[in-house]
Amino acid sequence: MARRLKSRVQAALEGQDPQLGRAVAVLVYGAILASALVITLQSLRDLPGWAVALLRGAELTLLAIFVAEYAARLWSAPSRWRYALSFWGIVDLLAILPALLLLAPHSQTLRVLRLMRIFRLLKLFRMRRALMRLEHALDKAREDLLLFLLLAAIVLFLAAVGIHHFEKDAQPDSFGTIPNALWWALATLTTVGYGDVYPVTVAGKIFTALTLMVGLGIVAIPAGIIASALLNAPARPDETEASGDDPDTRQPKTNNTERE
Amino acid sequence: MARRLKSRVQAALEGQDPQLGRAVAVLVYGAILASALVITLQSLRDLPGWAVALLRGAELTLLAIFVAEYAARLWSAPSRWRYALSFWGIVDLLAILPALLLLAPHSQTLRVLRLMRIFRLLKLFRMRRALMRLEHALDKAREDLLLFLLLAAIVLFLAAVGIHHFEKDAQPDSFGTIPNALWWALATLTTVGYGDVYPVTVAGKIFTALTLMVGLGIVAIPAGIIASALLNAPARPDETEASGDDPDTRQPKTNNTERE
Amino acid sequence: MARRLKSRVQAALEGQDPQLGRAVAVLVYGAILASALVITLQSLRDLPGWAVALLRGAELTLLAIFVAEYAARLWSAPSRWRYALSFWGIVDLLAILPALLLLAPHSQTLRVLRLMRIFRLLKLFRMRRALMRLEHALDKAREDLLLFLLLAAIVLFLAAVGIHHFEKDAQPDSFGTIPNALWWALATLTTVGYGDVYPVTVAGKIFTALTLMVGLGIVAIPAGIIASALLNAPARPDETEASGDDPDTRQPKTNNTERE
Amino acid sequence: MARRLKSRVQAALEGQDPQLGRAVAVLVYGAILASALVITLQSLRDLPGWAVALLRGAELTLLAIFVAEYAARLWSAPSRWRYALSFWGIVDLLAILPALLLLAPHSQTLRVLRLMRIFRLLKLFRMRRALMRLEHALDKAREDLLLFLLLAAIVLFLAAVGIHHFEKDAQPDSFGTIPNALWWALATLTTVGYGDVYPVTVAGKIFTALTLMVGLGIVAIPAGIIASALLNAPARPDETEASGDDPDTRQPKTNNTERE
Repeated sequence: MARRLKSRVQAALEGQDPQLGRAVAVLVYGAILASALVITLQSLRDLPGWAVALLRGAELTLLAIFVAEYAARLWSAPSRWRYALSFWGIVDLLAILPALLLLAPHSQTLRVLRLMRIFRLLKLFRMRRALMRLEHALDKAREDLLLFLLLAAIVLFLAAVGIHHFEKDAQPDSFGTIPNALWWALATLTTVGYGDVYPVTVAGKIFTALTLMVGLGIVAIPAGIIASALLNAPARPDETEASGDDPDTRQPKTNNTERE
Repeated sequence: MARRLKSRVQAALEGQDPQLGRAVAVLVYGAILASALVITLQSLRDLPGWAVALLRGAELTLLAIFVAEYAARLWSAPSRWRYALSFWGIVDLLAILPALLLLAPHSQTLRVLRLMRIFRLLKLFRMRRALMRLEHALDKAREDLLLFLLLAAIVLFLAAVGIHHFEKDAQPDSFGTIPNALWWALATLTTVGYGDVYPVTVAGKIFTALTLMVGLGIVAIPAGIIASALLNAPARPDETEASGDDPDTRQPKTNNTERE
Repeated sequence: MARRLKSRVQAALEGQDPQLGRAVAVLVYGAILASALVITLQSLRDLPGWAVALLRGAELTLLAIFVAEYAARLWSAPSRWRYALSFWGIVDLLAILPALLLLAPHSQTLRVLRLMRIFRLLKLFRMRRALMRLEHALDKAREDLLLFLLLAAIVLFLAAVGIHHFEKDAQPDSFGTIPNALWWALATLTTVGYGDVYPVTVAGKIFTALTLMVGLGIVAIPAGIIASALLNAPARPDETEASGDDPDTRQPKTNNTERE
Repeated sequence: MARRLKSRVQAALEGQDPQLGRAVAVLVYGAILASALVITLQSLRDLPGWAVALLRGAELTLLAIFVAEYAARLWSAPSRWRYALSFWGIVDLLAILPALLLLAPHSQTLRVLRLMRIFRLLKLFRMRRALMRLEHALDKAREDLLLFLLLAAIVLFLAAVGIHHFEKDAQPDSFGTIPNALWWALATLTTVGYGDVYPVTVAGKIFTALTLMVGLGIVAIPAGIIASALLNAPARPDETEASGDDPDTRQPKTNNTERE
């Protein structure tokens, strides 16, 4: 009896209940979006008193929804500890921590934790297959990506040391220390180029040209690797989709309700 | 009789009339380009009186051409409602709305609607096959693109929340609210980097580095996905080209004049 | 007799003469590089008198080399008119025009014509095969590239019209006319982002976000298309290399010295 | 006996010693990272006296480790000259030069040489296969990359000459000479766009638009080429991995300890 109820709660949370349909899932995912909106609006300054009160009320309501959802997920999970210690279980717990720790409900830092729930959006109904393909592509290209991450770190560091060497006398404020120069290297090699710092000496400019010639590709290549790997990833249409997305909470095949 | 005339009008609009050849189609597409030019010139300031009058005259002439074209297309369409409610039918109608609503012929906002016609250029003679391949590629990569759009939105939002947290005390004007911080996140993750806002605190700069490391790829990958999908898309040379580009107005095969 | 001499002159110009070897070709290509260097140095200000005179002498010497090379190529070409009217023949002629028009030897504009010769460097010995693959890839992806060029032009124009609409009251100097706004659109969609102009109104910033979401890919995709096409292009190792690179001046197979 | 000891020293340096395990390799690679950290910290200004002394001590300790490592590698190498003259042998020697030349231990320029060792990180245990694939991909795409490097150089130069021509009167400080204009061309075509220099004349802006249309791809394509080549590169799992990474110091198969 309880088991059937658990199954129904799970199905409802996933938007697969025969009667409730997607209502519960829409509420849950809508609450995440609403939470992001509330945090955004609360950051505005000079809000009138009624708006502050309204946002405070919305915040508490959303927290209540998150607490209820966490309780429902925990109670209905085939293995409670497994869910509690899974990636999404911890995210869900962190998200409601500000409510549990009633001592500091206004703490900005704690409230931001709630935003981690936003990644749950990725588990929405139609994203699953694409997300699996992305995981597969990242997995396939992991070695290449690690190599380019290391290469990028090395190039960033050497670029910073080099520009520090050439520009530290001309611009001691911007390039006087290597950490300062790293900020320039980051903005330059990612081609963001804010323009708050840039070389002014001839040697520094020539060094920048050489650095860009080498470094531009190193920063741009990983995106190309992932894009190519994605296209080549097999679609793997059906059987993997049912059980493959959340290995931490995966259950034996006989009980296939835990598909969160 | 009327039916044959309709077929000829359609063929003429598509540049396939045996006698008129491409003359009508060139006029129609030329009018779109001229319309863009007129709007551009009208935006210039301190124009002499004769130029303003000339541009006004050109605008009215072009509007007349658009009205005539819309009437011809509507009259000659195999199914008038189908054309009127198709994507291109609505675009064509919106484009001549300023002429029909003679009450407000100068309204900037309404006039800009006419620019939607510019997308008609994509239907020019030699673009069709490439456009079809693009549609096919977008269709094939739709799930991946949706995933990255969602990922990009999440990363933009989290980047804004984070930089707001680190910089709001140092630069209350630029990072004091999350919407303000979103502007920075957009300019940074797209690597536009105007340089109107940038972090100045050490924590903000480190956060920027981490954000770029993750976010750069997320924004750059979709372009790579489309490019790869395009190259792998089959050419599908002949039979699809004849009927595949405009499903809304597609007719039964026996009447193949509606190929607009 | 004259025919054998012509063949030798041709071979020498291509660096294939059995005795002279690459000497002549190195001289010719070296003169192009030297010409670029001379133009660069001549742009420097406050040069001492002797340097100006030296550069003037170098310029005249290089012009003499170019005139001699043009004469040799013209004389030795199997079909003189064919060479004179080929792409490279016209480039070579334009390059020495300032020398032939002794009336205005200092004209900056004319002198810059000489720089067109710099593209001859692409015909250097080991570049040929890669250049052919690039031509092949561009040819294969021509339709897609044209489509994206048109799409990019449309998006640039609509972005300019839109930002003009939203920002013209707040920043009449930067966004007051559509041509001005086009400059912003160019700098933004290419992600160069100089930072000389950027939107300041909320509506303008939201419009920028939407524009970037659509436009970023449109500008970035063509590079991906060419890169993918290049990788997939066949190598076509030997027989095409010998005769395929310059169809304008290609000769019958019996006389295979015109391989320039 | 000495031979077995040599083998063990080599194995220890590579983290393959049965008893010491990875301890020695971790120490060696850790010393490289520590060296980068020390150089970074030493660049900070206004350090207290004890910190300067501490960093000085750390620097000397690290130098001692590098000297010891170089000695161990040299002594244990199957062929000492081969190692001493190999790429990594020279890097290792340069890295300890400041210690050997006790005359100028503080020279910034010499100390930076030590940073070359940072590339040794690329030889870390799990990077090897990816690095080999990268080498293979670069090798395969070498001709295309060379072509685009040359094309990029030509486009950069012509862009600089062009913008110099159009902007030199309006902005003599930024575009007065071609080398100055080259700095603009670099920042623009890489899309870094610092914003320290940008065209202001109408002709200059139109020229920038044309340049970007052509040049953007030329700079962006090489990254795409490498990414595509990487994905298509075969994995070549086992036998090449054992001996293929460092041809300069490769030994006969019977003695497979020199796998550095």
